[in-house]
Amino acid sequence: MIDLKILTWEVVMDRTSLQILRAVWKKPLDVWELVIMQDNDIKNTYETLNSLKDKGLIEYSKNKIKITEKGIDELIKENAIPYIDTKCEYCRGKIYDPKNFKEILDVFKEIFANRPMETTEFDQGVVSEENSVRRLEFVYERGDLEGREIFFLGDDDLTSIVFALSKMPKRVVVFDVDRRIIEYIKEVSKKYNLNIEAYEYNASNKLDEKFVNKFDTFLTDPVETVKGMRLFLSRCVQSLKGKGAAGYFGLSHFESSLKKWYEIERDLLEMNLVITDMLRDFNEYLLVGERILHEGYYVVEKSPVEVLPPTISWYRSTFIRVELIDTAKPKIVESVSWDRSLYFDDETYVVRP
Amino acid sequence: MIDLKILTWEVVMDRTSLQILRAVWKKPLDVWELVIMQDNDIKNTYETLNSLKDKGLIEYSKNKIKITEKGIDELIKENAIPYIDTKCEYCRGKIYDPKNFKEILDVFKEIFANRPMETTEFDQGVVSEENSVRRLEFVYERGDLEGREIFFLGDDDLTSIVFALSKMPKRVVVFDVDRRIIEYIKEVSKKYNLNIEAYEYNASNKLDEKFVNKFDTFLTDPVETVKGMRLFLSRCVQSLKGKGAAGYFGLSHFESSLKKWYEIERDLLEMNLVITDMLRDFNEYLLVGERILHEGYYVVEKSPVEVLPPTISWYRSTFIRVELIDTAKPKIVESVSWDRSLYFDDETYVVRP
Repeated sequence: MIDLKILTWEVVMDRTSLQILRAVWKKPLDVWELVIMQDNDIKNTYETLNSLKDKGLIEYSKNKIKITEKGIDELIKENAIPYIDTKCEYCRGKIYDPKNFKEILDVFKEIFANRPMETTEFDQGVVSEENSVRRLEFVYERGDLEGREIFFLGDDDLTSIVFALSKMPKRVVVFDVDRRIIEYIKEVSKKYNLNIEAYEYNASNKLDEKFVNKFDTFLTDPVETVKGMRLFLSRCVQSLKGKGAAGYFGLSHFESSLKKWYEIERDLLEMNLVITDMLRDFNEYLLVGERILHEGYYVVEKSPVEVLPPTISWYRSTFIRVELIDTAKPKIVESVSWDRSLYFDDETYVVRP
Repeated sequence: MIDLKILTWEVVMDRTSLQILRAVWKKPLDVWELVIMQDNDIKNTYETLNSLKDKGLIEYSKNKIKITEKGIDELIKENAIPYIDTKCEYCRGKIYDPKNFKEILDVFKEIFANRPMETTEFDQGVVSEENSVRRLEFVYERGDLEGREIFFLGDDDLTSIVFALSKMPKRVVVFDVDRRIIEYIKEVSKKYNLNIEAYEYNASNKLDEKFVNKFDTFLTDPVETVKGMRLFLSRCVQSLKGKGAAGYFGLSHFESSLKKWYEIERDLLEMNLVITDMLRDFNEYLLVGERILHEGYYVVEKSPVEVLPPTISWYRSTFIRVELIDTAKPKIVESVSWDRSLYFDDETYVVRP
């Protein structure tokens, strides 16, 4: 195993090693700061860290990962220099500026502050208020908002409220497995006169006929397993009216290897969905604080270096837009009776086992 | 035909009509300003313009498209308002800031100014100097630059020179059908001591064995036909070493309907390439000035409204990153003898017929 890695090494330094080494050459980083500097899944990142340490290219100091002289020598051979951040310094590469919908953002901040707290029971993890407004802006720019009937499958972020606050959609319907979320959305909808329809729904169940082929746009943030993705995207695509209808969902490279991405992309095409946009790190989740250490997440349990509570919103996902080029062809239509494997595979490092 | 459109209309206003109407509600626009406000191909955009005019929702005034009172009424029914630009006002949504590689940008500006001018014979269209540096930054961030052997198929933009100026790649090799480009790259390479290898090569020909499975990263900007894309991407993927090697290419929605995108995405998966990034409008081409009117481009010939020379870099493409999840499986390996249909189909509105 080690021999094989050394062999690969002599051909070309793998991308993950390069991304890690140049990042810690700039300055020592903890695991949360480090994972956002590289493109691999966390499982593979941890394996790479172990391999780099075995080779003497990095060392650990309490919760920090540092480069060694030998590590610097290896980087120099690759013509590398300490990592340069080339992103726009204003939007940090996030493309959209939430201040363009400032009134909505201000109202939503209050609503969001009083939300029911996330629970690991349903693999919840929410994005910030600004992030939800950026989603609105991206969907707006694409023309998938005004006059549209919009289907949300899972909405612990409460992004549906942001959409309804814009007063642009014709209809906003939310389905979530968590009764607390549904109750809260109903309460907010009543208070702000938003007309959101909210239903308690488990994606394992067949989608009610009255929601089939009724929507122009869907948004969802599925669980990060191939079958979880397939299930969520099937329900979503089934909700769409037909050709030209569009969908948005998050997919993380932290918990999904590119092999998994490949399977998901094949599913999309088979459902008649073409991919039109793929925005890396568009979604940033508020997985911070002491609690993260006590959920049994593999990102903590299997870390090769000491882990302190994260202070940055380190968990990210790529925001993907798809569009129907023809009639929707969901891969799953009937109810399924799946156990917790819906949520969990050997790459899902941020799910309660 | 018209009846069918009106029928669709009553269900929901199509996305292209919405994107056009809300844009011209903000202010009257010429065709160049208008096409960048919507996501459809130009052929379909022109058909939509004709349909909107027939319905009395827009009118033409010299080279400008204006909304009518009836058009505003239709938009109000859709809860729409005049278009709001929600992009970051600093990078205009371009994610990367070319000033982070300022020395390279400054040197490259001089080199670029003296380049051989684009020719329609080979469907050339170049991006700006800043755009080439943004490409460098994106590829750098992904870890596909340092110590890498990089394959360029077609490089009228001279992006290969930007890459070589960074001094980070291990090897830069350029193939182009245009002898003038090859000569110029060689001349610059010698003058600046860049060690770029440049070869005159027509993608119709089989790739020489000595370049097969030799590269870590490819960049290309193929002609916008399905078979053109298939040919270019086949040559490129064949140049890659194997799993983990990556590629970057441009694909425009102006000349490729989503049906075509779908075919191309299916090709990618069949070649064992997974899509990891898709950055809309990342590439902006310098297709400006009087000459654009005299090339026989359908974007001019078939315009429903008077066309004056473009003053903005209106032509854009999505920048797509793909990565090999396994051994490369090019769809085309042998030489092909194709005529001009390689460059031209009924959607390629910015190619000389």
